[in-house]
Amino acid sequence: MPFESSVWIEELYEMENGRTMKLKVTDKLATYDSKFQRIEIYDTKAFGRMLVLDGVFMTTEVDEMGYHEMLVHVPMCVHPNPKRVLVIGGGDGGTLREVLKHKEVEKADICEIDGDVIRLCREYMPALSCSFDDPRVTVYTEDGAKFIAERKKAYDIILVDSSDPIGPAAVLFSEEFYKNLSECLDDDGIASTQSESMFYHPNVIITLAQYNKKFFKVPSYYFTMVPTYPSGMIGFSFCSKKYHPIKDLKEEKAKALTKHLRYYNPDIHRGAFALPQFIRTKLEGILY
Amino acid sequence: MPFESSVWIEELYEMENGRTMKLKVTDKLATYDSKFQRIEIYDTKAFGRMLVLDGVFMTTEVDEMGYHEMLVHVPMCVHPNPKRVLVIGGGDGGTLREVLKHKEVEKADICEIDGDVIRLCREYMPALSCSFDDPRVTVYTEDGAKFIAERKKAYDIILVDSSDPIGPAAVLFSEEFYKNLSECLDDDGIASTQSESMFYHPNVIITLAQYNKKFFKVPSYYFTMVPTYPSGMIGFSFCSKKYHPIKDLKEEKAKALTKHLRYYNPDIHRGAFALPQFIRTKLEGILY
Repeated sequence: MPFESSVWIEELYEMENGRTMKLKVTDKLATYDSKFQRIEIYDTKAFGRMLVLDGVFMTTEVDEMGYHEMLVHVPMCVHPNPKRVLVIGGGDGGTLREVLKHKEVEKADICEIDGDVIRLCREYMPALSCSFDDPRVTVYTEDGAKFIAERKKAYDIILVDSSDPIGPAAVLFSEEFYKNLSECLDDDGIASTQSESMFYHPNVIITLAQYNKKFFKVPSYYFTMVPTYPSGMIGFSFCSKKYHPIKDLKEEKAKALTKHLRYYNPDIHRGAFALPQFIRTKLEGILY
Repeated sequence: MPFESSVWIEELYEMENGRTMKLKVTDKLATYDSKFQRIEIYDTKAFGRMLVLDGVFMTTEVDEMGYHEMLVHVPMCVHPNPKRVLVIGGGDGGTLREVLKHKEVEKADICEIDGDVIRLCREYMPALSCSFDDPRVTVYTEDGAKFIAERKKAYDIILVDSSDPIGPAAVLFSEEFYKNLSECLDDDGIASTQSESMFYHPNVIITLAQYNKKFFKVPSYYFTMVPTYPSGMIGFSFCSKKYHPIKDLKEEKAKALTKHLRYYNPDIHRGAFALPQFIRTKLEGILY
């Protein structure tokens, strides 16, 4: 079902704010209304295949590395022995794929509420969804917030690969979620959580930083660049019970890993924690 | 002349690549066909007033700080005594405004080919064009490439605040320009030049890095985030004859300056030189 050359898709969520990105679409691969959301997969001229949930651009083949590599390798290269890893959300598989590049991982659980996202990504986005059959992986099609509330000290690393704080992912931006996140991690655990854009959503970042500080001893925040996300970048809360994001970086491990990556390296690991002054000022007294 | 609420402007240049940004326009302030280009100034819902040249978004009031502060303060906080500064391009005045925050500057020359850009920005973008009347400033309405070719060892810092390598700015991306840039600087001079996006224009960056290496002893490259630019970021060639961009950073000077800034601080100065692996690999053997 190839499209006419004049077909473009716009991100709906940012329309009301008066700023939106438009991508030229070359093919429509899937549209499905799941129990939770509208799932769409397109082929685009500039960014390859793209997953869209409820009108929001979630990930594209060409620029997903900035997101997935930084969500995963920053905490994984700080924790000295990340054997047990949980991914919340992440139905496209990109986060799981990066987790499994770490040989010391013995167990990679993924808890994605919407099994139809996994199903469609496995069919249409193989570059991302290539790791679901790894023997270390267990897929839970459940509510991530409930999942972590029921488990104590069960993981070394938890990666929250969520959509925005509207719709099914809203619960992943609550104080209770951060409390449970802390309790679901072992005593030296680290979580990285998708925490929006410093340009467009500073108030979300401030709120999450407050939760992070309340439940973790070493709270921090870092960013990565993703051209198809609103404002071209996105940030992560680094929620750590023991290890410091820069002082405890395992330089040699990070360097060895870098050879197989497109975005992450030890320098950008450190650089990602350097924030522009306008957001640093807002986080003064919370994280700094 | 207020617009209807449904009026949006799209960046023309990226249309053919299948990726473009759309901004909601609340007012059209000026349209003028100068000798060189079409100059437009709009008020936008999300980003305040915006300058557009030949259909390309040049700068907006809300996110210009990422660009102007990083273009200016990175070289200015590395050079120990930047007294004589030249801005090439920069007709909106934002770069000049940042230069004049450095008290040691005795002479700030600006060479903008299109006097109508300065005229219209002085009328409609006062937040940027506030420094043209400073007694240290001399405005030259000339071709920047010719201007530097005629002057030897005349400046400590040169800042090339250009549009893209199409139209009147194309000459600022040539090998001869980088040769003349080097000769126009004193023996310990530094230039920063607008050098495009690593996501969208890696080949431009590689070419400019080769020129940079050929004519400067300490060539480097750094980036900043600007949501209204294609891919949400932009980079600069750091062209230095003597000083290292990080080892020679004047930390105390940078810290003192930071109090009056929205983007730049010493941490982000260092972080800006940490590049994602995909572009670092391309620059391996040139800059690394």
